[in-house]
Amino acid sequence: MQLVTVGTVAFDNIETPFGRADKVVGGAATYISLAASFFLNKSGLVSVVGDDFPTDMMDLMQAKGVDLTGLEVLKGKESFFWAGRYHYDMNTRDTLETRLNVLLDLDPKLPENYKAAPYVMLGNLDPKVQAKVLDQMSDPALVVMDTMNFWMDSAMEDLKKVIGRVDILCVNDAEARQLSGQHSLVKAANTILAMGPTYLVVKKGEHGALLFSKDRVFFAPAMPLEDIIDPTGAGDTFAGGFIGYLARTQDHSFDNLKRAIIVGSALASFCCEKFGVQRLLEIKREDIDERVQQFVDLVDFDIELVEE
Amino acid sequence: MQLVTVGTVAFDNIETPFGRADKVVGGAATYISLAASFFLNKSGLVSVVGDDFPTDMMDLMQAKGVDLTGLEVLKGKESFFWAGRYHYDMNTRDTLETRLNVLLDLDPKLPENYKAAPYVMLGNLDPKVQAKVLDQMSDPALVVMDTMNFWMDSAMEDLKKVIGRVDILCVNDAEARQLSGQHSLVKAANTILAMGPTYLVVKKGEHGALLFSKDRVFFAPAMPLEDIIDPTGAGDTFAGGFIGYLARTQDHSFDNLKRAIIVGSALASFCCEKFGVQRLLEIKREDIDERVQQFVDLVDFDIELVEE
Repeated sequence: MQLVTVGTVAFDNIETPFGRADKVVGGAATYISLAASFFLNKSGLVSVVGDDFPTDMMDLMQAKGVDLTGLEVLKGKESFFWAGRYHYDMNTRDTLETRLNVLLDLDPKLPENYKAAPYVMLGNLDPKVQAKVLDQMSDPALVVMDTMNFWMDSAMEDLKKVIGRVDILCVNDAEARQLSGQHSLVKAANTILAMGPTYLVVKKGEHGALLFSKDRVFFAPAMPLEDIIDPTGAGDTFAGGFIGYLARTQDHSFDNLKRAIIVGSALASFCCEKFGVQRLLEIKREDIDERVQQFVDLVDFDIELVEE
Repeated sequence: MQLVTVGTVAFDNIETPFGRADKVVGGAATYISLAASFFLNKSGLVSVVGDDFPTDMMDLMQAKGVDLTGLEVLKGKESFFWAGRYHYDMNTRDTLETRLNVLLDLDPKLPENYKAAPYVMLGNLDPKVQAKVLDQMSDPALVVMDTMNFWMDSAMEDLKKVIGRVDILCVNDAEARQLSGQHSLVKAANTILAMGPTYLVVKKGEHGALLFSKDRVFFAPAMPLEDIIDPTGAGDTFAGGFIGYLARTQDHSFDNLKRAIIVGSALASFCCEKFGVQRLLEIKREDIDERVQQFVDLVDFDIELVEE
């Protein structure tokens, strides 16, 4: 097992100004696992669903090397459900409905063969659940954590405890500001890195992503797309591509993290091209390689300063 | 005369969550001319002020090679005045007061030695005034135009006429969307380039800038700063650095425009570090060169894709 991912596996109803999709498969762990699968032979997923969850999607994930021994299926119960509506700018959304359903019963018990995995991805969830997963891991080489403002509002103390145990934290720019109480992202990064993580990734949606260490910063753009059909799961897809690339290369240097950010950004750009996980099921490794090259071209410049 | 700039020369009252400054010298043409002066020996400014405008600032600008023959000083009248307040995110602002004053009398008459200048910067102003400046130029090699949503709301027809006459248009992302009626910036760029310009620059403030040609796109980040004290004039400073670098290098290829974008972004980052034009008066060419190198480091990565 190269990677263990905990997070939601769910159904989503998604409305955008350009269309809608009902009861499509979603959830953080779904996007993360599918994105990471492009770089890994075997990862394990920890989550819970009801028996309404489609077995053909489970078969598809297993065919891509995602082990579902850690996915509990609760008989006679319904899977987590989220409904949301995106605004015209596609960077903001309203939650229309959340039905936690089986998520209330999520008490992760890791299969034995998950516990020695070197890479752990803590998808956005109750920090108490994230901590329980960490407690069961023997000695991971790298732990990446995603979270959101909801837990900052409702469980800051638990959240900070988990943040203190991870190597890399991923949040968006508003969340970095909320978590740190600093407006400047540079200062926010310093404050958050002092909480424990070695690296901070600030996701900015269509505006790209920043990677901070104590003394370095890297900026990756988002790919400008002709059409953004559905941004749902883009942040999780980014995280999955990011940790999948790291788990494959086993190199945690700043320079390799930069590459992982570009790979994650490439995968996130595909995710937005169709509703749900659809695009992630269509693309091949050569599509990713081609898009990574587009990122190279997008930011490449050689500077030649003139004499004063 | 290497460059002619038309735009406002003004007083600003600026409030931010971190401080305030009253009646500081501002105006688009002021920021543009000062930024461009790092790369040019001689540029000409076309604008109008009242006799309340400080002569020491005029002396300073002239010492930097900004010719003020084209700056009309109206006796007994007051200079254009703008007061604004920035919100906590520093990316949005409210206009508290605008007193047009002398701007109502701006009927640009270019000094003879301005008319053969190869580079023209049309700072944000009534498109009719921008057109009058263009009418008086003999045959410029490159015309760059800045504008804003105000003219899209109030004078779209005049605006489009001027856009059809320029080589490069600079607007922010919301304005690119408004002007084109397209949400996707890629589609917005195609629509706007079909109006006439060869290149479109989309300024995104703290999120960087995009450069579009019909078949290429380049993304430049903004420098993450410890403190953003005052973003007033950052867009004009960007434009000034951009056209100053182009006028100096006289190379209008996409690759050189990328360099000009980076130079403009470097200058804009300095502009935000203090109120008004203060920081632009302090920095030296070596400061700009050093910051440009920071931009190189900020986006630099080498990608090494792993075997499937």
